[in-house]
Amino acid sequence: MVDEKENEMVVTPWEVRGRVDYERLIREFGTQPLTEELRQRIARYTGRLHLQLRRKLFFSHRDLDVILDLYEKGIKFVLYTGRGPSGTVHIGHLVPWIFTKHLQDKFKTRLYFQMTDDEKFVVEDELKLEETKNFAYENALDLIALGFEPENTSIIFDVKDIALLYDIALEVAKRITYSTARATFGFQDSTNIGWIFWPAIQAVPCFLHAKLTGENVPALIPAAIDQDPYWRVTRDIALKLGYYKPAQIHCRFLPGLGKGGKMSASEPETSIFTMDPPEVVKQKIWNAFTGGRATVEEQRKLGGDPNICTIFQYFAYLFEEDDKKLAERERQCRAGEILCGKCKTELTERINKFLAEHQKKREKARNIIEKFYIKR
Amino acid sequence: MVDEKENEMVVTPWEVRGRVDYERLIREFGTQPLTEELRQRIARYTGRLHLQLRRKLFFSHRDLDVILDLYEKGIKFVLYTGRGPSGTVHIGHLVPWIFTKHLQDKFKTRLYFQMTDDEKFVVEDELKLEETKNFAYENALDLIALGFEPENTSIIFDVKDIALLYDIALEVAKRITYSTARATFGFQDSTNIGWIFWPAIQAVPCFLHAKLTGENVPALIPAAIDQDPYWRVTRDIALKLGYYKPAQIHCRFLPGLGKGGKMSASEPETSIFTMDPPEVVKQKIWNAFTGGRATVEEQRKLGGDPNICTIFQYFAYLFEEDDKKLAERERQCRAGEILCGKCKTELTERINKFLAEHQKKREKARNIIEKFYIKR
Repeated sequence: MVDEKENEMVVTPWEVRGRVDYERLIREFGTQPLTEELRQRIARYTGRLHLQLRRKLFFSHRDLDVILDLYEKGIKFVLYTGRGPSGTVHIGHLVPWIFTKHLQDKFKTRLYFQMTDDEKFVVEDELKLEETKNFAYENALDLIALGFEPENTSIIFDVKDIALLYDIALEVAKRITYSTARATFGFQDSTNIGWIFWPAIQAVPCFLHAKLTGENVPALIPAAIDQDPYWRVTRDIALKLGYYKPAQIHCRFLPGLGKGGKMSASEPETSIFTMDPPEVVKQKIWNAFTGGRATVEEQRKLGGDPNICTIFQYFAYLFEEDDKKLAERERQCRAGEILCGKCKTELTERINKFLAEHQKKREKARNIIEKFYIKR
Repeated sequence: MVDEKENEMVVTPWEVRGRVDYERLIREFGTQPLTEELRQRIARYTGRLHLQLRRKLFFSHRDLDVILDLYEKGIKFVLYTGRGPSGTVHIGHLVPWIFTKHLQDKFKTRLYFQMTDDEKFVVEDELKLEETKNFAYENALDLIALGFEPENTSIIFDVKDIALLYDIALEVAKRITYSTARATFGFQDSTNIGWIFWPAIQAVPCFLHAKLTGENVPALIPAAIDQDPYWRVTRDIALKLGYYKPAQIHCRFLPGLGKGGKMSASEPETSIFTMDPPEVVKQKIWNAFTGGRATVEEQRKLGGDPNICTIFQYFAYLFEEDDKKLAERERQCRAGEILCGKCKTELTERINKFLAEHQKKREKARNIIEKFYIKR
């Protein structure tokens, strides 16, 4: 018996569950598919496409074509993405950040990164403000560890930086009615008034560059598609405020190590956190859901299914840059030439190598984090 | 024909109209009448009661008795009141400020005065944020002109000081659901999300003293009764946050110079602004609604009615300190011994004398306003 309820797709900024149908999301959210033509336009500036574009982890957009049109006319853009600091960072969080760094390097643009410690406090019943502020600080270390340069990267900590954000947030909030907010975010009578206001804060970094520099340029937001509703309302009011509409490029969710669903900090056994020690990573990978068969004999005979394999997706989206090697791994799996144990061992090695480096850089980030603080 | 609609009492933080029935407000808002016993308890600390208490301009309260109980046990309180800076200040605004200064002088307490430039921006369609910020600054000059001392008076400018307010506002907002806010403030689908959040900001000064000094004491709020709903919700969550419930002492609205209604900046011809020149004051007073009769003959014969006379109320609440002289004026009016022209002339003289002084002090306040800025 299929549990329809369990498989029902739910994608909101606060909840992602069920089998995610990305084609349907494009239709329902009203975004545009990221076409081959657009990918090629990007490649003109970036050279070879980033693996997350080649392998279509980024699959949807709003106004990316407009951003590129403007760029061709000499109007730059800024990048904006962020993090809801409700816990420690796992590898799934790094995916759009790594892509954002790629765009920043290639387009030489400024990045505004928003740590939404205020949001996570008003949304999560059990979290204290001191906790979300602390997570914001700790999560920023993970961001910095990816190699962002302080010269062109500003991290916004909402609570710390509210003096910078508040006037723009008021301008936004004045133009969003409760009925729009309810329709967009599904607010209910039991929703608290902090949460209801908060979308105005998430809009601010779209427009902040103009306030800080006087330079009115559009923002391009690489983010998972569940965040789209925020910028949908932001787009509706941007022109009224004299700004460009923010553009977006949407990625899929990196799956957790269990069967289905995105990697989620609320299921720690299926998520690899950046601070996990090697033995823990090994154990989690070992328990991961794969596309393998029930027995070695079956696998040798029938082959595995990389399409549903969490391990394979980690190679595809993060840990195998070489397209040929990835294709060869896929072929060998389908042909029954390799067993899950081999893939798991190799992925464990790569993740642990990556994390060993990451953890070192993360600690060093403590010494330079203040360089990323936004100046007024 | 009586226009029922016109006389219908509406008292919300954003609108006061119709004939205000203060007894009914006490019942409907669920506040307590300010009894003779309580007035006498106040007098123990203040000496002779302030004229606004003697003449029952302040008529209602919440927990004033608790504040006095605590005070007797050695637990001080702070005063908190404020202003929505949507325009220039008129004499009606000064009424609770003057009383607040009296309480501050007698009880030697700190005052937090909130200038809600953010509220007026999100509530008033036509106002720009720069305008409400500017009104906040200009209105603060009127406050300072009344003689408040910077040593124990902090003026909170919401937008400027949001960094100080935001964390407490989030704590408050997290605990107020939309359904509570809607029931309390009458929010509708068309209400903007800035307005919906805003009651959390108005709650903050109730608790700010503890954050700034570490000293957890209750706040006593002298204000017009239309502001009560804000602190009703604040009272509901104060204990959960570890603070005392804010107490209140409520005043009536100073009537405008027209027939009925409170003095309102939206009816400039019936309001005396602090910056009005003498000739304008004279003209407005001359046009004021009085309790006089249609003709001199009738007035001499039947006498006037001070109960409905705006001029008499200005004497009573602001410009005649001497109870005997006030009673004599009332007697003479009722007896037909004086005509409206005499009262108007005398009131004009007193107001213009007051305003001449006030306007001088107000200009001097520009040099010291920064001393009232809140320090972090």
